[in-house]
Amino acid sequence: MPQLVILGAVALDDIRTPFGRRKNIAGGSAFYASVAASFFTKPGLVAVVGKDYPREHLRFLESRGIDTAGLEVAAGNTFRWNGFYDFDLNQAHTVKTELNVFADFQPMLPEAYRQAPFLFLGNISPQLQLDVLGQMRKRPRLVMSDTMDYYIKRERKNVLKVVREVDVALMNDGEARMLFKTPNLVRAAREILKLDSRIAIIKKGEHGAVLFYDNRFFAVPGYPLETVRDPTGAGDCFAGAMLGYLAKTRDLSEKNVRKALVYGSVVASFNAEDFSCDALRGLSMTDIRGRYNEFKRFVQF
Amino acid sequence: MPQLVILGAVALDDIRTPFGRRKNIAGGSAFYASVAASFFTKPGLVAVVGKDYPREHLRFLESRGIDTAGLEVAAGNTFRWNGFYDFDLNQAHTVKTELNVFADFQPMLPEAYRQAPFLFLGNISPQLQLDVLGQMRKRPRLVMSDTMDYYIKRERKNVLKVVREVDVALMNDGEARMLFKTPNLVRAAREILKLDSRIAIIKKGEHGAVLFYDNRFFAVPGYPLETVRDPTGAGDCFAGAMLGYLAKTRDLSEKNVRKALVYGSVVASFNAEDFSCDALRGLSMTDIRGRYNEFKRFVQF
Repeated sequence: MPQLVILGAVALDDIRTPFGRRKNIAGGSAFYASVAASFFTKPGLVAVVGKDYPREHLRFLESRGIDTAGLEVAAGNTFRWNGFYDFDLNQAHTVKTELNVFADFQPMLPEAYRQAPFLFLGNISPQLQLDVLGQMRKRPRLVMSDTMDYYIKRERKNVLKVVREVDVALMNDGEARMLFKTPNLVRAAREILKLDSRIAIIKKGEHGAVLFYDNRFFAVPGYPLETVRDPTGAGDCFAGAMLGYLAKTRDLSEKNVRKALVYGSVVASFNAEDFSCDALRGLSMTDIRGRYNEFKRFVQF
Repeated sequence: MPQLVILGAVALDDIRTPFGRRKNIAGGSAFYASVAASFFTKPGLVAVVGKDYPREHLRFLESRGIDTAGLEVAAGNTFRWNGFYDFDLNQAHTVKTELNVFADFQPMLPEAYRQAPFLFLGNISPQLQLDVLGQMRKRPRLVMSDTMDYYIKRERKNVLKVVREVDVALMNDGEARMLFKTPNLVRAAREILKLDSRIAIIKKGEHGAVLFYDNRFFAVPGYPLETVRDPTGAGDCFAGAMLGYLAKTRDLSEKNVRKALVYGSVVASFNAEDFSCDALRGLSMTDIRGRYNEFKRFVQF
C-alpha cells in the first residue's frame, strides 16, 4: 500500500531553453513529483496517458518503485505540452497545449491507495483535485495541493475551495499574487492561512521557497546552480521529494517539515540540471545528502 | 577620521509605488548607504548637492553622525530621479532623470578621508569610482563597488575595470546577467571572481542576496515583509549597513562577512517599509538585533 499518492499530469513535452531543445520527452507534474518522491518512498501515481505513451517511460517509472496501478491508459494520445524559456528561466512560455486523453480524465483511485496517509493533489483542475480527495476512505494525515495560473484565471472559486480543504497549499509566487490580488507575498500567504490551510508554501523558482505557518516562516534559498538546462518540473520535484521525505519519516513536527523542504529543494535543484528528469536517473541518496549538507553550510551564519 | 567612506549620489526623488506617492523626498545611493551605515559607524560622505538641497536633510545626515565634509554644495540644482514601481517591486521604472550638479561632479576627498580602511564606491560613473579610489593615500583594507544597468550599457569596459580593482563587487542579478551576458548567476559570479574581485555579491531584491568566494557561497533569503511601501534604496542600505558593520568590527573573516551580509539585509528590509529612509529614523539597535535573530531562526533546519 503506497504511503503517498500523487495526482497530476503525465505528459510528453517539446521544450526549448537557451541550453538546448528536446522533443517528445517525459514530463507532467505527476511524473516529476513521483520520480522525485521515489528516492524516499514508493508513491502511487494517479494520472492518465494515451496508447502512444512510450513503454520505456512506463518501465522507468516502475524501475523507480512507483506504483502505477492508478495510471490509466486510455484510447487516444497522451497530454502534450510545447513550451520554451528565454533568458529568464523563471518564466515558462507555452506554445501549445494538447489535452488529448487528459480532457476527459476521471481519476479513479485503486482501493489500495484510498488509505494512504499522504496525498499530493498536483497541478490539475481543482474539480478533479476535490474529487480525488473525496475518494479517500479516511482523511489523510497530510494533503498538499498545487495549482497554476490557468486554473486561477478560469476556476478561481474552486482553486480557493481546494486551498480551504488541504493542509498545505503550495503555489509559486506569481500564482499566489494572482490568486489573492496582492503584490505582497506575505499577505498572499496570510490569506492562504486564513482559508484554513495549516501551511502555505510559496515556490520562487531559482530563488527558493518560503514556508509560512501562524506567525512563523522558514526560507530556503535557491541552490546556486552553475548548470541549469531545463527548469521544467522543478516545482513538482520539490513537492514530490518533500512529501516523499515526510511519508518516509512520518514526522510532521516543524523541525522535520523544514528538513523536508530542504530535501525538496535539493532534488528540484538536481532536476534543473538536465531535461526531463534525466539528472535524477543516476542520482544516489549520497548525492542528495551531500547537497543537503551544502544547503546547511550555505545558509549558516 | 571616518573608518568608512561612501561615494555615490545624493538626490531628490519623486516616487510612485502601488502603496503611495511622494515628491521631493531625500534619496540617492550615498544618502541611503550612509544612513544605513550610521547605525554601526560614522561614515564620511562623498557626493554633491545643489543649492536647493533642503537644510533639513543636511541636518538629518549630521544628526546621524555622518561626516559631511565630503559633501560638496555646488551652484545649481540637486540630482533628481522620478520613477515608479508596479506590482513587481523588483523593477524600477524611470520617468525622468535630471543630472543637474551631478553632471559635472568631480569628487575631491577631504584629507581626513584618504586613509579610511573601508571604501564604498556606490552607484556612480565608473570613471569617478576609479578616480576616488586613486585619491586614497593607501589601499583601504576593503573596497566595495556597486553599479547599474545605465553604466553597463554605456561604459562596460570601465565597469569591468572597477570590478577588477575592488575587493567586493556588488551588483543586482539583472546587472550581473547583463555585464557578463549569461542568464546564469553563478557563472556571472565566477566571471567577477576571475576578474580578481575577492568576493562577488549578487543582490536579488526581495529574494535576498548571494555571496560568492572561491567555490563557496552564502545565501541570505529576503525577509518576508508584510508591509513594503518603497523598495528604493534597499540595495544601498544593504551595502551601507554591511560595510558599516565591517568597519565597526574590523574582522574580515568569512564568518564575520556572513554576519555583515545579514545585517545589511536587516537594515535593507526595514528601509523598504517606508518611503525615503523614513523607516530607519526611529529604528534602534535593539530592533536591528531583533530582526537579525529572526533571520537566524527562519533559515535554521
